[in-house]
Amino acid sequence: MDLTAEITALAQKVKQASRVLAATGTTEKDRALQLMAAGLRDRRVFLQEKNRLDLIEAEKQGLSAAMIDRLTLSDDVIESMAAGLEEVASFADPVGEITRMWKRPNNLMVGKMRIPLGVIGMIYESRPNVTADAAGLCLKAGNGILLRGGSEAIHSNLAILEVLQAALRQTSIPGDVIQVIPLTDREAITEMLKLEEYIDLIIPRGGEGLIRFVVANSRIPVIKHYKGVCHVFVDEHADYAMARDIVINAKTQRPGVCNALETLLVHQQSAADFLPLIAVALKDAGVEVRACERSRAIVPDFLPATEEDWYAEYLSLTLAVRVVDDLDQAIDHINRYGSDHTEAIVTTEYRQAQAFLQRVNSSVVMVNASTRFSDGGQMGLGAEIGISTTKLHAYGPMGLEGLTTTKYIIYGDGQIRQ
Amino acid sequence: MDLTAEITALAQKVKQASRVLAATGTTEKDRALQLMAAGLRDRRVFLQEKNRLDLIEAEKQGLSAAMIDRLTLSDDVIESMAAGLEEVASFADPVGEITRMWKRPNNLMVGKMRIPLGVIGMIYESRPNVTADAAGLCLKAGNGILLRGGSEAIHSNLAILEVLQAALRQTSIPGDVIQVIPLTDREAITEMLKLEEYIDLIIPRGGEGLIRFVVANSRIPVIKHYKGVCHVFVDEHADYAMARDIVINAKTQRPGVCNALETLLVHQQSAADFLPLIAVALKDAGVEVRACERSRAIVPDFLPATEEDWYAEYLSLTLAVRVVDDLDQAIDHINRYGSDHTEAIVTTEYRQAQAFLQRVNSSVVMVNASTRFSDGGQMGLGAEIGISTTKLHAYGPMGLEGLTTTKYIIYGDGQIRQ
Repeated sequence: MDLTAEITALAQKVKQASRVLAATGTTEKDRALQLMAAGLRDRRVFLQEKNRLDLIEAEKQGLSAAMIDRLTLSDDVIESMAAGLEEVASFADPVGEITRMWKRPNNLMVGKMRIPLGVIGMIYESRPNVTADAAGLCLKAGNGILLRGGSEAIHSNLAILEVLQAALRQTSIPGDVIQVIPLTDREAITEMLKLEEYIDLIIPRGGEGLIRFVVANSRIPVIKHYKGVCHVFVDEHADYAMARDIVINAKTQRPGVCNALETLLVHQQSAADFLPLIAVALKDAGVEVRACERSRAIVPDFLPATEEDWYAEYLSLTLAVRVVDDLDQAIDHINRYGSDHTEAIVTTEYRQAQAFLQRVNSSVVMVNASTRFSDGGQMGLGAEIGISTTKLHAYGPMGLEGLTTTKYIIYGDGQIRQ
Repeated sequence: MDLTAEITALAQKVKQASRVLAATGTTEKDRALQLMAAGLRDRRVFLQEKNRLDLIEAEKQGLSAAMIDRLTLSDDVIESMAAGLEEVASFADPVGEITRMWKRPNNLMVGKMRIPLGVIGMIYESRPNVTADAAGLCLKAGNGILLRGGSEAIHSNLAILEVLQAALRQTSIPGDVIQVIPLTDREAITEMLKLEEYIDLIIPRGGEGLIRFVVANSRIPVIKHYKGVCHVFVDEHADYAMARDIVINAKTQRPGVCNALETLLVHQQSAADFLPLIAVALKDAGVEVRACERSRAIVPDFLPATEEDWYAEYLSLTLAVRVVDDLDQAIDHINRYGSDHTEAIVTTEYRQAQAFLQRVNSSVVMVNASTRFSDGGQMGLGAEIGISTTKLHAYGPMGLEGLTTTKYIIYGDGQIRQ
């Protein structure tokens, strides 16, 4: 059987099974999630045996320690996969919710009902725990999932699949609602991206190269973000101690993630007071600063920034700093160099706070809070399957609700159109 | 200047202008719509002069009478474009609406605010009135629009653009929020579809060939429907007079549109009574029937259907008819042959009505009403810019709300993440 036929057949199976899942009640879905969690715990030894095959291969290939760490199914990782599935079971089921209903002049009752999207195609790298995490969220939202993990985790991913499907056999939900593409060539992705008939949404997770490849080749809608170049703007009137705490938290609490701060913008009226203050705090936290000339005139220790620094997602203890004339210039900077991810203003002025919230159209915009709160869990959306900086469908952290759509329902009593 | 550079420059201009529009208040947007309407009426003679150039060319090329009819900017068409813009001015502005807001344990206030999508790319054929209709809806929702009409309407489209931009010059909204690509080669579409940096959504309107071309080549999300194969299912227990009226209305009130009925499914227990009744009504209405063998055993006049008939979007006075065992078989048929557009059940049973509404996941699902109500205006959504059978973002008729997205906003008072 050739590649195209094999992947098409797999996607068809998931689509077929997803129809049964879409009509399955919440109680049964939650029971399945509990059984899946129990299965992962019970079969820890089996999972680690299979994971060992990937680890041996990874060492042979000379993968970095960080890569190998992300690949490893430690006791902790397995426990957190299981706990994650139990947590998803505890979330409210979005499916079936009527979000609005209204009456037309001819007495038709028109409403919107939340339904599953159908089948999600997930393309990801290294971390095998994504297999269980994504499968759990998709199942709760009534969606089938076709997973395509990296070749470096193939034994682990197939082992997790086996455990999850075994759990589903104790329920009325077909095991085929979760499938892993067992083929590891990149061509398998290209084929998958053509199957718009069977897959409703593609979520890629990985480096910018992988994501650009997916966007360029997909006929299926893709939800993605390339990177997170997040900004904090310290306004003319601001509580500088608050601003310092927010900047330090946003930059250093976990610098390697997409909601970490990358560029600090400072109002020219605040620069003389705030920059020396923040320079000390950043130095104490081990942060290297690359700054504009106006900043360096105040704090000569700052390294000079180049145009590239304004675009940079450092993901490390480096921060770009720029003095701006006013709110307008701050917003222009964000529009020009930003990534539509997360931006915050620190201000004591009502008017500036409201203007920033209204006029900055990034997916998450905040006043007086750390950009690190840009996260499904922190924002109360439950676990998140991804973050979108594409404005279509889901913009920002994407949880269970983002894995559904709404159909229109109409109750009539014999109406015909004139 | 080459093709790529020219189209990129145009898209950049629209993106830039759209930022100003996004921050423009409702009053000014409505004033612009009124001025655009007045402009179309005032410059009727100019529009018809330019339209004449397209009509002369169309006759030279031997286009069909139907095509030429759709191309013509008659007094009525111009008046209806103007009235359409005034109607859009009367709709509520979706931008800025806070759809939800909630409080987190750490006192962060998290909410969702409706914002424009940014720039819409519209690709369409023949009808030049789409230029004004789409521009009006996009403007009200705060979006820039880059239009790429068919070569056969190029003079008309550019003339309409000139009038609309002249109206905008009397407002604070930059004229560049509306642009028409003046290049008529298909390559211009391919180039446009690569500009994901400047265009947020592509809406193609036209034949299935054009739409498939767009989907296959776009890096930008596409909202589309290929076709409408709509079903009516007459249940075991149904008011047959109501069922007859709905079937005749859905099939014949306007057979050439996507929400017209294409396949009638009849419960086996209703077939003996209902099929002879509907056969007479269909014959009176001039409808040709292609039916399954079980139907033909009851009404031998029906022509035999082939497998292709179940997939057919006739868009004419032809109807496929099939007897099914029960609701399950009706739903299986719809899932297998349908297009996710619109389906209706005619029933007197509560249980069946609810089961159909819950289990059929087409974009519009109705009980005891004609499929012809599947329309933004009829459903109370205001004018529609398109219908989507892609589940992402907008599923079903798409009005002003579908031309927006939501960003998250967060009000804090200095929170940092632990």
